[in-house]
Amino acid sequence: MSEFALIDALRARTSVARRDVALGIGDDAALLAVPDGQQLVACTDTLVAGIHFLPDTAPEDLGWRALAVNLSDLAAMGAEPAWALLALTLPQALPRFIDRFAAGFAELARAHGVALVGGDTTQGPLAVTVTALGCVPPGRALTRRGAKAGDAVFVTGTLGDAVAALYGLRDGNFGSGRTTVAPALLTALNRPQPRLAAGLALRGIATACIDVSDGLLADLGHVCALSGVGAELDADALPVSAALAATFEHAACIDMALAGGDNYELCFTAPAARAAEVARVLAQVPGGVTHIGRIVAGSGVVARDAHGARVVTRSAGWEHFAR
Amino acid sequence: MSEFALIDALRARTSVARRDVALGIGDDAALLAVPDGQQLVACTDTLVAGIHFLPDTAPEDLGWRALAVNLSDLAAMGAEPAWALLALTLPQALPRFIDRFAAGFAELARAHGVALVGGDTTQGPLAVTVTALGCVPPGRALTRRGAKAGDAVFVTGTLGDAVAALYGLRDGNFGSGRTTVAPALLTALNRPQPRLAAGLALRGIATACIDVSDGLLADLGHVCALSGVGAELDADALPVSAALAATFEHAACIDMALAGGDNYELCFTAPAARAAEVARVLAQVPGGVTHIGRIVAGSGVVARDAHGARVVTRSAGWEHFAR
Repeated sequence: MSEFALIDALRARTSVARRDVALGIGDDAALLAVPDGQQLVACTDTLVAGIHFLPDTAPEDLGWRALAVNLSDLAAMGAEPAWALLALTLPQALPRFIDRFAAGFAELARAHGVALVGGDTTQGPLAVTVTALGCVPPGRALTRRGAKAGDAVFVTGTLGDAVAALYGLRDGNFGSGRTTVAPALLTALNRPQPRLAAGLALRGIATACIDVSDGLLADLGHVCALSGVGAELDADALPVSAALAATFEHAACIDMALAGGDNYELCFTAPAARAAEVARVLAQVPGGVTHIGRIVAGSGVVARDAHGARVVTRSAGWEHFAR
Repeated sequence: MSEFALIDALRARTSVARRDVALGIGDDAALLAVPDGQQLVACTDTLVAGIHFLPDTAPEDLGWRALAVNLSDLAAMGAEPAWALLALTLPQALPRFIDRFAAGFAELARAHGVALVGGDTTQGPLAVTVTALGCVPPGRALTRRGAKAGDAVFVTGTLGDAVAALYGLRDGNFGSGRTTVAPALLTALNRPQPRLAAGLALRGIATACIDVSDGLLADLGHVCALSGVGAELDADALPVSAALAATFEHAACIDMALAGGDNYELCFTAPAARAAEVARVLAQVPGGVTHIGRIVAGSGVVARDAHGARVVTRSAGWEHFAR
């Protein structure tokens, strides 16, 4: 299979022409101009069919999602996205699949001004690996290491929607009174929105940040482990979408919000005294923000209900799509 | 499966500590310092079990090779390698496999001062995607586009060894009088040497450059297509290793040298008047260099024997490992 079919399909759909791309797709490697004085931010993530997405996922959604999960990592660093490289493995050359995949990838790339600068198309079991590259001024990146006891904990957007959609698609558990997955939940699963604007707005404010890919408890747990602190969450404060609340009982919503993966919201910490500033700088960005708890001395993450009782989730973190 | 097992194994084996890595593995993304005034060079390549390598390839060799094929792309650009990101997909968590894979990857990384700065380990059919990042001063990169009629064509090292090893391992065709694959051929297949020193030495001299991953005819064909020229090769001038010459008949050696993939040598063009300079700057780098033909007006690549007759190869380019 030629990699040129994919690349032509992507080129045809992507109007992102960045002046900092000196040489793009079509040579042994791309040549890129990182602005003087900025740090390069780099991450890579793989999606494997049957593990990270259902095998019948629409190609457009897969293309979007493969880029989204990587842009979400850049968002969590407070980075400005610039370029991406794409390695797509397909069982056979399927022009229509490639076309549709390219359309979804390019739609998100255009939305954030990301140029595709390299690619590799290979034959094999369906999987996608994207490498995303961006920039940040030195000392301004958000990391997982700076949370301090007394900091407040926040999350963007809403939690649990994606895993709720998965319960429907994979298990036929659509929630009360429904026979299909609510459209808003499907959108959360298939078209996650990387919170790039929020990440940029949080430079100089957030003390630590991570994107919620494995589930809130698990991901905030990474922040706590690396920062040497613990966290307490107010279960009733967790932001849940109207679609989720209308579909599942309260306890199930809380469970999904705490443990469900694939949210791609940002969970971050900031000094409690700056909570109003956090609300102000994020007022204009998509998704909004909710204050959900606090960083404490110690270790581990616990969620408590309004009575102070610990909320125990059914699962600890990210679930495989394949059960 | 946790990605930390792999990453710890790699960390334990890699002593590459680069001062330009502000933040390495363990956060949402790496933070890297590209030297002011240099361009970033980026490429990505995937190896899939049964397609790009035999399923029983030793994990050490797979780790080496996954990095080597990407460093080879940087070499072809005349770039200095700096960092790599690794996405490894494994059917199940096999600590011993990961350990051995890490050893091979780290051995090559150390040899070229490359720091592993990001990774993702996922469950699924065995495959590896590496993204390699390096630097080059603006205007100094070698591309596929600058070959001109009258230029001489060169190749580093020797050609055909890797595919000869594949014929043995895959097909039981070991060559005359042999019942196993000659060790030197196996090494060429399993431990390709990215020609980074040659790429650096060719800055300002080569007019076009590519690495021979798909086969000499195919890869030089890419250079010719992008440069708007043709090429004529002297079949008898093609560099063939002593091991290959001792194992296969002359015609078979020429065929493998022209069409065999996985060589990872550099094929490049330079003004004919600078042939002595080419020889001089490459005299000290591993592999050496051979003058194998010339760029002509027109299009396409032909190889001719000493009588001027066109040499026709059995295959046009890269062969799948799986037949």
